[in-house]
Amino acid sequence: MIAVLKPGVTDRQIESLKQWLEGQNLDVHVSKGKYQTVIGLIGDTDKVDAELLESLEMVESVKRITEPFKSANRKFHPDDTVIKIGNTEIGGDALTVIAGPCSIESEEQLTEIARKVKNSGATVLRGGAFKPRTSPYDFQGLKGEGIRILLEAKKATGLPVVTEIMNVNHIDLFSEVDILQVGARNMQNFELLKELGRCGKPILLKRGMAATLKELLMSAEYIMAGGNNNIILCERGIRSFDSYTRNVLDLSAVPVLKELTHLPVIVDPSHATGISRLVEPMAVAAVACGASGVMIEVHNNPSCALCDGAQSVTPEQFDKIAEKMRKVKEALK
Amino acid sequence: MIAVLKPGVTDRQIESLKQWLEGQNLDVHVSKGKYQTVIGLIGDTDKVDAELLESLEMVESVKRITEPFKSANRKFHPDDTVIKIGNTEIGGDALTVIAGPCSIESEEQLTEIARKVKNSGATVLRGGAFKPRTSPYDFQGLKGEGIRILLEAKKATGLPVVTEIMNVNHIDLFSEVDILQVGARNMQNFELLKELGRCGKPILLKRGMAATLKELLMSAEYIMAGGNNNIILCERGIRSFDSYTRNVLDLSAVPVLKELTHLPVIVDPSHATGISRLVEPMAVAAVACGASGVMIEVHNNPSCALCDGAQSVTPEQFDKIAEKMRKVKEALK
Amino acid sequence: MIAVLKPGVTDRQIESLKQWLEGQNLDVHVSKGKYQTVIGLIGDTDKVDAELLESLEMVESVKRITEPFKSANRKFHPDDTVIKIGNTEIGGDALTVIAGPCSIESEEQLTEIARKVKNSGATVLRGGAFKPRTSPYDFQGLKGEGIRILLEAKKATGLPVVTEIMNVNHIDLFSEVDILQVGARNMQNFELLKELGRCGKPILLKRGMAATLKELLMSAEYIMAGGNNNIILCERGIRSFDSYTRNVLDLSAVPVLKELTHLPVIVDPSHATGISRLVEPMAVAAVACGASGVMIEVHNNPSCALCDGAQSVTPEQFDKIAEKMRKVKEALK
Amino acid sequence: MIAVLKPGVTDRQIESLKQWLEGQNLDVHVSKGKYQTVIGLIGDTDKVDAELLESLEMVESVKRITEPFKSANRKFHPDDTVIKIGNTEIGGDALTVIAGPCSIESEEQLTEIARKVKNSGATVLRGGAFKPRTSPYDFQGLKGEGIRILLEAKKATGLPVVTEIMNVNHIDLFSEVDILQVGARNMQNFELLKELGRCGKPILLKRGMAATLKELLMSAEYIMAGGNNNIILCERGIRSFDSYTRNVLDLSAVPVLKELTHLPVIVDPSHATGISRLVEPMAVAAVACGASGVMIEVHNNPSCALCDGAQSVTPEQFDKIAEKMRKVKEALK
Repeated sequence: MIAVLKPGVTDRQIESLKQWLEGQNLDVHVSKGKYQTVIGLIGDTDKVDAELLESLEMVESVKRITEPFKSANRKFHPDDTVIKIGNTEIGGDALTVIAGPCSIESEEQLTEIARKVKNSGATVLRGGAFKPRTSPYDFQGLKGEGIRILLEAKKATGLPVVTEIMNVNHIDLFSEVDILQVGARNMQNFELLKELGRCGKPILLKRGMAATLKELLMSAEYIMAGGNNNIILCERGIRSFDSYTRNVLDLSAVPVLKELTHLPVIVDPSHATGISRLVEPMAVAAVACGASGVMIEVHNNPSCALCDGAQSVTPEQFDKIAEKMRKVKEALK
Repeated sequence: MIAVLKPGVTDRQIESLKQWLEGQNLDVHVSKGKYQTVIGLIGDTDKVDAELLESLEMVESVKRITEPFKSANRKFHPDDTVIKIGNTEIGGDALTVIAGPCSIESEEQLTEIARKVKNSGATVLRGGAFKPRTSPYDFQGLKGEGIRILLEAKKATGLPVVTEIMNVNHIDLFSEVDILQVGARNMQNFELLKELGRCGKPILLKRGMAATLKELLMSAEYIMAGGNNNIILCERGIRSFDSYTRNVLDLSAVPVLKELTHLPVIVDPSHATGISRLVEPMAVAAVACGASGVMIEVHNNPSCALCDGAQSVTPEQFDKIAEKMRKVKEALK
Repeated sequence: MIAVLKPGVTDRQIESLKQWLEGQNLDVHVSKGKYQTVIGLIGDTDKVDAELLESLEMVESVKRITEPFKSANRKFHPDDTVIKIGNTEIGGDALTVIAGPCSIESEEQLTEIARKVKNSGATVLRGGAFKPRTSPYDFQGLKGEGIRILLEAKKATGLPVVTEIMNVNHIDLFSEVDILQVGARNMQNFELLKELGRCGKPILLKRGMAATLKELLMSAEYIMAGGNNNIILCERGIRSFDSYTRNVLDLSAVPVLKELTHLPVIVDPSHATGISRLVEPMAVAAVACGASGVMIEVHNNPSCALCDGAQSVTPEQFDKIAEKMRKVKEALK
Repeated sequence: MIAVLKPGVTDRQIESLKQWLEGQNLDVHVSKGKYQTVIGLIGDTDKVDAELLESLEMVESVKRITEPFKSANRKFHPDDTVIKIGNTEIGGDALTVIAGPCSIESEEQLTEIARKVKNSGATVLRGGAFKPRTSPYDFQGLKGEGIRILLEAKKATGLPVVTEIMNVNHIDLFSEVDILQVGARNMQNFELLKELGRCGKPILLKRGMAATLKELLMSAEYIMAGGNNNIILCERGIRSFDSYTRNVLDLSAVPVLKELTHLPVIVDPSHATGISRLVEPMAVAAVACGASGVMIEVHNNPSCALCDGAQSVTPEQFDKIAEKMRKVKEALK
């Protein structure tokens, strides 16, 4: 970590700053330039509050040299993390295709969709039981009953299942669920993240609507700090100024994250765009730029989906999308 | 609610859409224009999923005429909500001044600051016991012990106190706290909001970093739907592209929210800017544009604050700020 | 166009509004709902100032039904625009690959790069002669001499050339240039756009850093209104909150624009990301989501590029990128 | 300027980098830390392309210590710039109130508004002759005739006048105009800025919709590099995700800019919010946080304004706003 001091700082000031920093168990290197003095800090600088340091009267600016995330950092774990669920692998060279309806509506609905997406090559079944909705008056999901239905579909198809958890107290309900999803709105619900760090299950962590990639990695770090390293990161669109699509799908996050971390990175084109017509091109593009997989909303009757029908594709459309993704993956081998 | 149909939609299509909508207990008015047909929906349109409707092949676009928030809506509750805590009033003509350290560090620290800010005119004491930090390795607050200290300072000064709650399971710890704060990162932690709807206590609800004003109001609606109408909204800066200040303080949110809702609206210039030098001008500006109050971080030794010292002001600086806010409030009477 | 009136508007008010609108040669349809009245406007509503209408005391909100862009609108011109330059086609099924250095430095440099990128499959040569730089103290390009060098490289390789124009008074200098580029900072330099509408040459119009897709199309409309329909739209990244990449490449703009307009849409991954390592994955993703082409910065010695070296790839890297783009294009046929 | 090298960089690499940098006439100080090496650059680092340096294989990151703007920098010119136009002063302790219609429509209209706003305390008259409109089909202003009318109103009232220039070739038309405005869309129209650097007239430079404060200062630097130091900076709202107001008025830009530069800083609440009801609170807030002045759209019949009527206030409303601004300015003395 480097602190640049303001011009005209006195030696006495520098000395007191030096002592204060050494008091935090840091090696302090002072190098006086012609006009300005620069202080280099070596040691456990993660503990240093950069904003606080920058706020000192005598300090002009501060720069971290090392990233604050450790467990998630590829520098210290060069190999890809590969998560195994039964015979399914997520990460590495695998192409993970998560598909299913936004909300679970009934056993018939879910099992039918599950069978169809499995035939089209889906490797994981998704379905919402607890739904985070902007309005308290909107449908909130079938909750516990939804999870029961999801597990029936798992039995019927053998597909591992993923569904969203919103409340630390619901965790027992998820004991047979294969992957627990943390939604974008809860990416910095640190109490939930800590709890999930204690359960060994794979976590699908969605990027917050205005979260930087480093904040996403710090949230993964919260889970990993608890001892759970089975994390799948998911880019699902960031908030921007153009209302044409619901969010802006930030696909360059994929190669950037693959550089910064060893965790699998998938993409959710359905929520990102909010427009079913855009799911195919963006899903294929996600594979093209190196995503470990995609998460796609599929509904057998989008116009009647109890939520987010706007962005669902039909099983027939999904079949085409899955094939194109495989072709692109193949072409880039 | 209005749905504009695409050109060339057939009467049969219109009829089937009409029936589907009437099936949702809505009055449907079809008016055929020269080129396009417009459908007006009257009834409980809050239940209609606008995105779903817009996704239908035959629909070009959809527009809500009425806001989806009801309890928070000034149209239905023209008078300002005034929240009473002992002799303190929040909302209406009162100027609420919330002050205190970001984190509670010790009884001595907090009581000293509490005494000073009270003398300068603070009406509520703030102090963080549970701290949401981006990094799991940063100081997370004194937790329960912090709340004990906060309540001591309340006894010592008679100031009502506000502190942040992050976990639905902590609620009993807050039984003697006057105002529970929901942080920006939890603005859409709907499980927490529902829980707070069941407790009668005043809630200070901070705007999420990328939340629209309507989303902020919908989150308030979550709490109000549970029967708790004592909500204070807080603008604390939104995320933007210029990294000079930590966030962009969106002060026009104040007059806009006062137009849309009857709830009190306060401003937090400390977190918004992240720079203590900017707290005075932005606090004064907040009062000038009609805020019901401000929330200011005050620390007796900012350079040693365990977190967010960068944005804290000293009790002496706070004293000047408070005086200027009063002068502006007076000048605009 | 639809105007929703506020509740409680009187018939007299409605009548006066109706007359005022009819005075603008519009057919006015008034339909009174149970609670609110809706006014439909038919005719040349492009002339209506929606913001003005919305500002009227009695009007609650206004909605346009038709887009304000005409010449660029696919609704009225369903077929793709294909721009022919000699034997080169841009748009339709062609894959346009524009490559070259950010800045033209010397005849040797440019000709060498031009030969190499042509061998790798580039179809158009790019090179900056007039450079828009944030700082007046940065290198501003070789200007007229740069254009002379560019035309030499054109002669030497037969590749059509594109370069940026910044000043209406420079247009004569560009008489032998095949495609004139309008940079992101000039996307709403309307005086320049009007001038380019009068010259028949193909225009490469880059999206402004914070321009909506409709604003981009309206800027194209400025050029087309002058009679020049040979426009290539270019997505080059939008400004956002995460500083990891220079901008956020908004790839979903590609399928959206292809839906809204018949004009070719290309992508510039070099400027969007500002990081050479990200050019390959994002260029390939651009092709995967349907871009008509890409624009890539190539430099024979990036570390010495006089500007933007950070984002340049070497001719060898470009060769691999071009091959991968062709493979993906092939796979998706 | 500081460059942090990647771990494991060899001495030979460091030496070659050192030589390359010294070749750019810089003093290079190498300080080897335990894990990483840091290189300090002293001299005319404005010439160094930070992005290029950061792109080198061996470089991890680069940090500028000094701002790239010089003439506009308060560090080198501690005293406020005060611009004198006849008896009117802009900057320092003066409160500049610029008022008038968005577009000039007729001599009667403008002169009537000019008389009224002067009586209410306006110090400068504004009026648009050349209008930058998103659509080529919208009213583009009266152009030359508009300027003639503006100068008539100047004669009639003695108020100095400001109007926007969009084309380098129009400059002769502005010979009698007191202040030339550069609109947000042209903030980085560098050719126009250079031209204005050559004319001695005061320039009102509006912040671009997505421009950082440093980019705004660099654009001012373009004008100052030409020898013209009479620049007034104007915050007019930045683009963000909430469409409730047209833009987000970034008022903290005022105290930040006053810290970074000696140039006067004013605020345009009319364009920022796009809603006339918000002009009063935001104008008053602008004065409260230290703005040198405000720019307000005033129209004698907003509902008929040919453009931007939505955001205009009446002369009567303006009179109240002006009085409140004076009261707040007085209260904060």
